[in-house]
Amino acid sequence: MTAAHDCIFCKIINGDIPSFKVFEDDKTIAFMDINPVNPGHILVVPKAHASNIFEIAPDDWAACMVNAQKVAKAVQQVLAPDGINIMQANGTGAGQSVFHVHVHVMPRQSGDDLKMNREYIPGDMEEIAQLAEKITTALLEQ
Amino acid sequence: MTAAHDCIFCKIINGDIPSFKVFEDDKTIAFMDINPVNPGHILVVPKAHASNIFEIAPDDWAACMVNAQKVAKAVQQVLAPDGINIMQANGTGAGQSVFHVHVHVMPRQSGDDLKMNREYIPGDMEEIAQLAEKITTALLEQ
Repeated sequence: MTAAHDCIFCKIINGDIPSFKVFEDDKTIAFMDINPVNPGHILVVPKAHASNIFEIAPDDWAACMVNAQKVAKAVQQVLAPDGINIMQANGTGAGQSVFHVHVHVMPRQSGDDLKMNREYIPGDMEEIAQLAEKITTALLEQ
Repeated sequence: MTAAHDCIFCKIINGDIPSFKVFEDDKTIAFMDINPVNPGHILVVPKAHASNIFEIAPDDWAACMVNAQKVAKAVQQVLAPDGINIMQANGTGAGQSVFHVHVHVMPRQSGDDLKMNREYIPGDMEEIAQLAEKITTALLEQ
């Protein structure tokens, strides 16, 4: 598997940095965003390093998106938010800050007034850990 | 192919409402958003009606996303925006306004300050038609 030196998501994939993982298969990993826009915000990431949608292999891209659908269903089941966005950013103009492809499964609350290029506000780690457990269970039961 | 009565995207797919189409295959169609957030904004839509990510068949979802990648590459080639977001909304809280799955390929301009739940501002139809032609050509040459 291709990894990039000094890529934070490659380090999470390799286990060098801890994460609240909710799902893993041969091509992808999904873990909690620790700066969630709302509770239950999850990232689905390809294991093979690719900076953006222009570089990623189509089968890795498809695997991320198929698994993002599974994750969205689990988030819906556990949290029933007012909406869910699937969002992915390419380039700083689009709000990309980590240059390893990541697909956001982003729960929404009516009136949260989110911007496409969001601010990063650390979440409550205990709440994130508890939600990770519930969402992992919901994914296993799918 | 399942179509839903009074669904504007089913009517576009059936040809009952005109669109600036840039791509079509057995499972999907892609056409210009006529209320673009920026020039080159395109929607990739499954031909089989499904309201949202919870209802769509996984193979239709994957087909939309694989084709969204192709469309993003063509938009990048033709327009070289400051970024591109792939975005999909489920539920009014997430900004969904047409209840037939649609994946936004959304070119970004630095400082455009877009919100997740955007306003709808009609674009210049002549500009949209010209861009549709260029992006169609770029997709054919991929």
